[in-house]
Amino acid sequence: MDFLFSDNAAGVKPSAIREILKHSSEPGMIPFSAGNPAGEAFPVADIARITNEILKKEPVAALQYSVTEGFMPLREKLADYMGKKHGVVKDFDKIIITAGAQQVMNLTAKALCNRGDTIVCENPSFVGSLNAFRSMGAVLKGVDMLPDGPDLDQLEEIFKTDKKVRFFYTIPNFQNPTGLTMSLEKRKAVYALAVKYNIPILEDNPYGDTRFKGEELPCIKSFDECGLVVYAGTFSKVLSPGMRVGFMIGHSTLVDKVVALKQTQDVHTNILSQKIAYDFMTKCDYEAHLKMLKDIYRRKAALCMSEFDKYFEGKIERTSPEGGLFAWCTLPESVDMLSFVNEALKLKVAVVPGTAFLPDESAKCSCFRINYSTPSDEQIIEGMKKLAQAGEKFKW
Amino acid sequence: MDFLFSDNAAGVKPSAIREILKHSSEPGMIPFSAGNPAGEAFPVADIARITNEILKKEPVAALQYSVTEGFMPLREKLADYMGKKHGVVKDFDKIIITAGAQQVMNLTAKALCNRGDTIVCENPSFVGSLNAFRSMGAVLKGVDMLPDGPDLDQLEEIFKTDKKVRFFYTIPNFQNPTGLTMSLEKRKAVYALAVKYNIPILEDNPYGDTRFKGEELPCIKSFDECGLVVYAGTFSKVLSPGMRVGFMIGHSTLVDKVVALKQTQDVHTNILSQKIAYDFMTKCDYEAHLKMLKDIYRRKAALCMSEFDKYFEGKIERTSPEGGLFAWCTLPESVDMLSFVNEALKLKVAVVPGTAFLPDESAKCSCFRINYSTPSDEQIIEGMKKLAQAGEKFKW
Repeated sequence: MDFLFSDNAAGVKPSAIREILKHSSEPGMIPFSAGNPAGEAFPVADIARITNEILKKEPVAALQYSVTEGFMPLREKLADYMGKKHGVVKDFDKIIITAGAQQVMNLTAKALCNRGDTIVCENPSFVGSLNAFRSMGAVLKGVDMLPDGPDLDQLEEIFKTDKKVRFFYTIPNFQNPTGLTMSLEKRKAVYALAVKYNIPILEDNPYGDTRFKGEELPCIKSFDECGLVVYAGTFSKVLSPGMRVGFMIGHSTLVDKVVALKQTQDVHTNILSQKIAYDFMTKCDYEAHLKMLKDIYRRKAALCMSEFDKYFEGKIERTSPEGGLFAWCTLPESVDMLSFVNEALKLKVAVVPGTAFLPDESAKCSCFRINYSTPSDEQIIEGMKKLAQAGEKFKW
Repeated sequence: MDFLFSDNAAGVKPSAIREILKHSSEPGMIPFSAGNPAGEAFPVADIARITNEILKKEPVAALQYSVTEGFMPLREKLADYMGKKHGVVKDFDKIIITAGAQQVMNLTAKALCNRGDTIVCENPSFVGSLNAFRSMGAVLKGVDMLPDGPDLDQLEEIFKTDKKVRFFYTIPNFQNPTGLTMSLEKRKAVYALAVKYNIPILEDNPYGDTRFKGEELPCIKSFDECGLVVYAGTFSKVLSPGMRVGFMIGHSTLVDKVVALKQTQDVHTNILSQKIAYDFMTKCDYEAHLKMLKDIYRRKAALCMSEFDKYFEGKIERTSPEGGLFAWCTLPESVDMLSFVNEALKLKVAVVPGTAFLPDESAKCSCFRINYSTPSDEQIIEGMKKLAQAGEKFKW
């Protein structure tokens, strides 16, 4: 049976990371390629207790249909939390609970983007979001990532010359895949450009609450005076990704449309998990949990970076993440990235080829992404040693 | 802030049912308008016990990222169950776990339908699916529902003359909103037409396992020899709708594409709920649960129909559902349907105006939908009395 796929669907392929991830689950493989939060950071005892209580006290409400906008007490709690901590909920804003932040990218693009319209993104950027945009038939235009965030000249040039730009997608904190953080100045400048050209910003902040080093910086959304910034948040990195609970904060006009679209997509987000998230925020010590989680990531990142430097200092450039799960490594010109990644795979070490994160996947790339949250300490130590062995085949 | 919405999104509005449902939640309102499974049919003790066990035994796996295709043991169990019970999994088929059956409609339309393409549906049909198709920019063409299913002449006429038909959407068992069931002959004839014109069928069977009267009929998918039939199933009506766990069975070529699309939408379905569904199917007495559930619906449907007939026999025609949650009522020409529904609302009885379910919402309609699973027995008795009072304003 041959199916005639829609134009939008025809262009969508399983993410390149998936192929690598298949290798990652092979026995003995060291998974620097994954993007999983550390299992030891899940508050499993609290979640088990809370869940048990919910299913005892209000089983029918926890299992019945619910509203598309999301569990009202959770929305109110998030408005309060995000307002106090990040200054992001404005009078004109509304919150909708989504199936992870992934659904925010999907629905924002669906709401705003016709086939052939342009979405501007960082280059490189998170492949899951890029694929969501591709699935709407969007043309992706990348803006190179500099150490302090996206190149503003490139951004303005696109804003100025491309009349089909629908929004700019950015991950200001500990970006996936680079681990880079946008400076405060640049956040303000990006917002100013959005206002100047009247182009919305989709600010994706999955790692915001994982900063384990350096100073907190305000969200771009906190500058928003006219409803141009859409904020995507999630419990995936701070509580549990398997629950698939995220949220979107945006101007009510846009959120109302997104509610109508979400209704056609999955009716509402799993209600038991929304209640778990709510109870976790209100009945457990959320700040103590975040501190515990940051301690884990600070330690794992430091171990991974020092093991990396042991073998690769002066050979492979890398970023120094202050939060999140990833670092970005740049090989010298003399080493072919895909050959290096494949050599590593042969030695049972998986990293993700940088090409997976490019708006234009066919562009040249000498980078790869490593993750330090998934492998165990032993795997990090062993994995870096093997990565160094893989490197021995190449001339540096 | 004004947003320029995409062409597809611009046409999507919150479902008309939602407006009625807002009234339904007003204090004292009798909710014949809802579509909720009866809360008393939820196996709450089993679910609480299973969930507790999962979070004790394998908390990290129940909270971590999972694969887009869905929890493998659940897919295998469903393949086994659906094969044995409904004969629906063919060699060329694959299963994907989705966020309810709603996501099957959304992703099938997304995979197959460009803006301006035609989707053929029953007239009337489930508004949630129609809105999913509308959100892809599909043109909906309705085929009138007869007592034994859709009008075959109309169906063939559309298949023959419209070259942009992408698939035919049908709910053969206890259809929402009519409660009607497609005859065996018609199931075969519909499949034969699909083969003749090489047009896929999307068979939505949310209520299949709720038959409380009459003989089981084979699914259209069970006749499928060439991969033309896509089957949508769900745990929403038999276990819990709030869990948002459904599934799609279809030709592997199509399911592979749907997997890639789902990945861009929500990465994967809530994994804890997938594990709950699996454990419920394998560790609890699933058949005994279905029997209990059917007993509840048989009783509630009988009560609702007899109370209805007490006041409306010879005045309002109604269908006689053998399963599912709904009956469809047709007012005489002399009574204006919307006036009747509004009179009922004034007396605190909510039913859904039939127009909500029409492919062409502006068409004339003298029908309304009633649900018997949500109201309590007392509410059913009181509600029908009030509905009769509302009717007193009209000439019959």
